[in-house]
Amino acid sequence: MAPQLDNYFKQVDDLQDKFIDRLREAVAIPSISSEDARRPDVVRMGHWLADQIRALGGEVELRELGPQPGREHLTLPPCLLGRYGSDPKKRNILIYGHYDVQPAAKEDGWATDPFTLTIDDKDRMFGRGSTDDKGPVLGWLNVIEAHQKAGIEFPVNLIMCFEGMEENGSEGLNDTIKAEAKKFFKDADVVCISDNYWLGTEKPCLTYGVRGCNYYSLEISGPGQDLHSGVFGGVAHEPMTDLIRVMDSLVDPDGKILVKGIADLVAPLTDDEAALYPPIAFTMDDLYQSLGSKATIHDNKNDALMHKMRYPSISLHGIEGAFSTSGAKTVIPAKVIGKFSIRTVPNMEIDEVNKLIQTHVEEAFAKLGSKNTMKFNIVHCGKWWVADPKHWNYTAAGKAVEKVFGVKPDLTREGGSIPVTLTFQDELQKNVLLLPMGSSTDMAHSINEKLDKRNYIEGTKLLGAYLHYVAEEPTN
Amino acid sequence: MAPQLDNYFKQVDDLQDKFIDRLREAVAIPSISSEDARRPDVVRMGHWLADQIRALGGEVELRELGPQPGREHLTLPPCLLGRYGSDPKKRNILIYGHYDVQPAAKEDGWATDPFTLTIDDKDRMFGRGSTDDKGPVLGWLNVIEAHQKAGIEFPVNLIMCFEGMEENGSEGLNDTIKAEAKKFFKDADVVCISDNYWLGTEKPCLTYGVRGCNYYSLEISGPGQDLHSGVFGGVAHEPMTDLIRVMDSLVDPDGKILVKGIADLVAPLTDDEAALYPPIAFTMDDLYQSLGSKATIHDNKNDALMHKMRYPSISLHGIEGAFSTSGAKTVIPAKVIGKFSIRTVPNMEIDEVNKLIQTHVEEAFAKLGSKNTMKFNIVHCGKWWVADPKHWNYTAAGKAVEKVFGVKPDLTREGGSIPVTLTFQDELQKNVLLLPMGSSTDMAHSINEKLDKRNYIEGTKLLGAYLHYVAEEPTN
Repeated sequence: MAPQLDNYFKQVDDLQDKFIDRLREAVAIPSISSEDARRPDVVRMGHWLADQIRALGGEVELRELGPQPGREHLTLPPCLLGRYGSDPKKRNILIYGHYDVQPAAKEDGWATDPFTLTIDDKDRMFGRGSTDDKGPVLGWLNVIEAHQKAGIEFPVNLIMCFEGMEENGSEGLNDTIKAEAKKFFKDADVVCISDNYWLGTEKPCLTYGVRGCNYYSLEISGPGQDLHSGVFGGVAHEPMTDLIRVMDSLVDPDGKILVKGIADLVAPLTDDEAALYPPIAFTMDDLYQSLGSKATIHDNKNDALMHKMRYPSISLHGIEGAFSTSGAKTVIPAKVIGKFSIRTVPNMEIDEVNKLIQTHVEEAFAKLGSKNTMKFNIVHCGKWWVADPKHWNYTAAGKAVEKVFGVKPDLTREGGSIPVTLTFQDELQKNVLLLPMGSSTDMAHSINEKLDKRNYIEGTKLLGAYLHYVAEEPTN
Repeated sequence: MAPQLDNYFKQVDDLQDKFIDRLREAVAIPSISSEDARRPDVVRMGHWLADQIRALGGEVELRELGPQPGREHLTLPPCLLGRYGSDPKKRNILIYGHYDVQPAAKEDGWATDPFTLTIDDKDRMFGRGSTDDKGPVLGWLNVIEAHQKAGIEFPVNLIMCFEGMEENGSEGLNDTIKAEAKKFFKDADVVCISDNYWLGTEKPCLTYGVRGCNYYSLEISGPGQDLHSGVFGGVAHEPMTDLIRVMDSLVDPDGKILVKGIADLVAPLTDDEAALYPPIAFTMDDLYQSLGSKATIHDNKNDALMHKMRYPSISLHGIEGAFSTSGAKTVIPAKVIGKFSIRTVPNMEIDEVNKLIQTHVEEAFAKLGSKNTMKFNIVHCGKWWVADPKHWNYTAAGKAVEKVFGVKPDLTREGGSIPVTLTFQDELQKNVLLLPMGSSTDMAHSINEKLDKRNYIEGTKLLGAYLHYVAEEPTN
């Protein structure tokens, strides 16, 4: 029997002012994890969240993670390990989120104080962390409260993992997940993460994959010191000229990857997968708007979506050591370091990709006949993640979306990386679902971050509905 | 009859401690023209120099140049216009130099206080401005003093032009030269500038040319703001990918210029000119040492010298707007500005070169099929300058070198630009000679700038001897 949710939905509507007050309190705590001076605020935010959960009857441990690696004068903010309910007859749903935020200051160009939740006449709720990720985390708390107020039995047991370092490399999280995989997290049946965004503004989505990212640097050096281009131009092998040629050999302006062997690693497009893209509520105009221009490689939605979600790409990020400020400087830089990365997709294994890239740049450099020297360096690698969108975790979430929004959700993948998804999947061997609350216009990480009131309130309904559907969805 | 210089030389030797004290006083005034706070010191240095000249019987005007264009809160340091002697039977020699210096601070890595002249056990005199250009400027004053003390008649009339903004764009100098070409400078027969360096450490040179420099920027933009490479990699035309390809199309790693038409503008090498390079006292080891590596394009001295002195070169200096600091950032920069320049030689006219470069980059960009937009910008252009090394100004200087050092000087051209040479030549229509005092190891503009005592004292002899020879050299 489909879950009866009307009372729950009504209760969420009735409590919406209280839920907004809860978000206002959270936004007011400037829990910026990347600023030393704000570290006490991050810790305060963790305690505030723990208190909120305890007040709702949950059990919470604030797990201390010790000093921050490499910056030992700082103590890591605690990882909140929580539990709500422990009925052995119910499924256990592991939810993840984070209570820290990106930096923000009025001087950056915010229209309002970033740490004062400000609601405009279009019901947009502006504030740092409103959508990333305080709104979604509090959504779970709202779900508990609405159930209690409505007197509805909670359909599952919740296992919570809320960290305070997500915006600063998730230091300490992987170790915690590994350590607790067979302990605190051992009962988890599936994982649900609400920390990404709809593709547009109208239609919810379920996200079943993210691309990986291998990041490289390429150092070319020769002269003993920076040179004057008048004195040495035409005489010295210039590291910049060499680097520019090697970087140019990686990718065409139309995005075609020129590294031999990469294309062979990409999983062929099946009919099943191809069928997922056309229904996605996304137009080229949406893309133009988010890009701020019409400079797209592809002119049709399906190609654009597939190149964002299921094909690799190489981006040239910049060059360290070269002249990079405004004005003119007639320098021949002695040592330049090119930075580039490749976004990876199934079935590109990290080591295989690294080997192909290294072989390519070494061959390209050898071709130059330069007397400079090149060093290839792998900066960091994170693997892609793809879940099975037909898993019962997803079908349950799909039903919840239909119930709350009246539409089937888009099934999407993120172009960017969310490493925690892979960690949960690998360590727990459970299906992971990304169930976003915010929309594409929320400006996470930017100025004027916001969460629409509709997304917060209907999103709270969605998270609750999901728990009811996932509680009774048949396993596949 | 060859000039009788023995008494003069002896006097210089006798006065050397006094001349070094003069340099010590000058170095102690931190006349850094590019630092606002030091502007009063630059002015003080101008007045100190004027007082020195007046004490020697010269006439001096400190010409005020008004506010600094674009930085009107600063007043330009005065241009010193001086005269020593006005005998209508004597030739009038215009000498140019500058009394300002590059920035310097002990913290930059100087072994000694940069504004305290410090002489080590190898008679190297360390101090900012020692070689660039206080030593040479004071050399002229030493010449006057030694003549007076030895009771030798001064062989020429000196017209002096000493500026205080050379290290900061020579603001105001061109206007002064233009304004005075037919007034204060009207009697000048030839021009002599001592503000460059020997090619090595043993053999003096006369410098009869400099390369020009046209500097360009290339702005490519598309996205409305910086993008996340995960979200937009493979979807957007990336300005960096476009720019790297266009920059790569300009020059090969072996220095070959790929811009159509440039090679045709370069004056063919005549036998006369070709004969100038082999005698130059310069070895590949000298080059390796100054380069700090063996990463030279050419393996033989003559090719290396010609590519420094008489062939054009293109250098890629850097990129503004891309990721340029250490670490890793997965950004697709929205707007990137490539900076590059071409060193020009006879007969490359500025406008012709600009046209060829613009055509080339526009065609290269069009080939990309990118939807981004490109803006080509000419940042600054300075023409090459080549004088006739057989002019009597040069033959006189050659005799002076032989007299003082016992060797024929190298005839060289500078790879870098010294715009004032061209201004004097164009405005006065007189032969200009570069007669350096310092050596290749003096580290002008760098830390631990120095002038060897030998170069200062023998250089003072050279400047004086030059005046005697140029006074009586037959015109060609």
